[in-house]
Amino acid sequence: MDAKAERRRLEEARVARLATADGSGKPHVVPVTFAIEDETVFFAVDAKPKRTTNLKRLRNMAANPSVSLLIDHYEEDWSRLWWVRVDGRARVLTDEAQAQHAVDLLAGKYEQYRKARPSGPVVAVAIERISGWSPDTAPRDKPGRK
Amino acid sequence: MDAKAERRRLEEARVARLATADGSGKPHVVPVTFAIEDETVFFAVDAKPKRTTNLKRLRNMAANPSVSLLIDHYEEDWSRLWWVRVDGRARVLTDEAQAQHAVDLLAGKYEQYRKARPSGPVVAVAIERISGWSPDTAPRDKPGRK
Repeated sequence: MDAKAERRRLEEARVARLATADGSGKPHVVPVTFAIEDETVFFAVDAKPKRTTNLKRLRNMAANPSVSLLIDHYEEDWSRLWWVRVDGRARVLTDEAQAQHAVDLLAGKYEQYRKARPSGPVVAVAIERISGWSPDTAPRDKPGRK
Repeated sequence: MDAKAERRRLEEARVARLATADGSGKPHVVPVTFAIEDETVFFAVDAKPKRTTNLKRLRNMAANPSVSLLIDHYEEDWSRLWWVRVDGRARVLTDEAQAQHAVDLLAGKYEQYRKARPSGPVVAVAIERISGWSPDTAPRDKPGRK
């Protein structure tokens, strides 16, 4: 998969899985909705639970800003699987204008956020690396390519 | 979501996302096919690339056995989202009989593995905790429940 295809899939994907790790290195993974602009991925906390500002993913990012975000496609025809992963560094946006810009991007992508703007913390992930896999780009000796 | 519903969803899910972290706590996330039996989740490395035995996920698990596995459902009706997460400790099965039992479980679940048994390392994750979320079990003040 080339960089253009990876980017397109990142822009089109509706959900990603966010991996964080706590200060001791214990990993944690949750689904997130997100938007991408230039070299940054944004997501917001929906303020579902009262404990919003104390969510595990936020505590982890405060202790350890390294995160990994995955989008992938699964179907029973395994010759059509693919994934794209973004590795980067996360921070909660404290600048209100930046946070509102990110929420605008999310609302532009998701009708659900236009109806109810997320009111919780907004996170920006500075992209350090994008990697991807699909059978097209797998080594030629992949069994599935026979 | 009660424990029974979480378990059923884990048994039915066709793909999970596996989060690991390296020795420095940097997280990594990949999609995996898996099988669950009693208190253990199993997955195998498909031996796609030549570098199989040196995959990042395996290096991470050797340095740091804590892993987090997520299954989740996404659709545009956000009142129907759910996820189930398994946190546990991973180890590569070195006992050949145990590894073959795990591959039997995987082949029982996936026709694709019956056609081509995975020949790479097999990983067992000892389940330490199962947690889940769905709107049914969310706090009553969740905006989406209005």
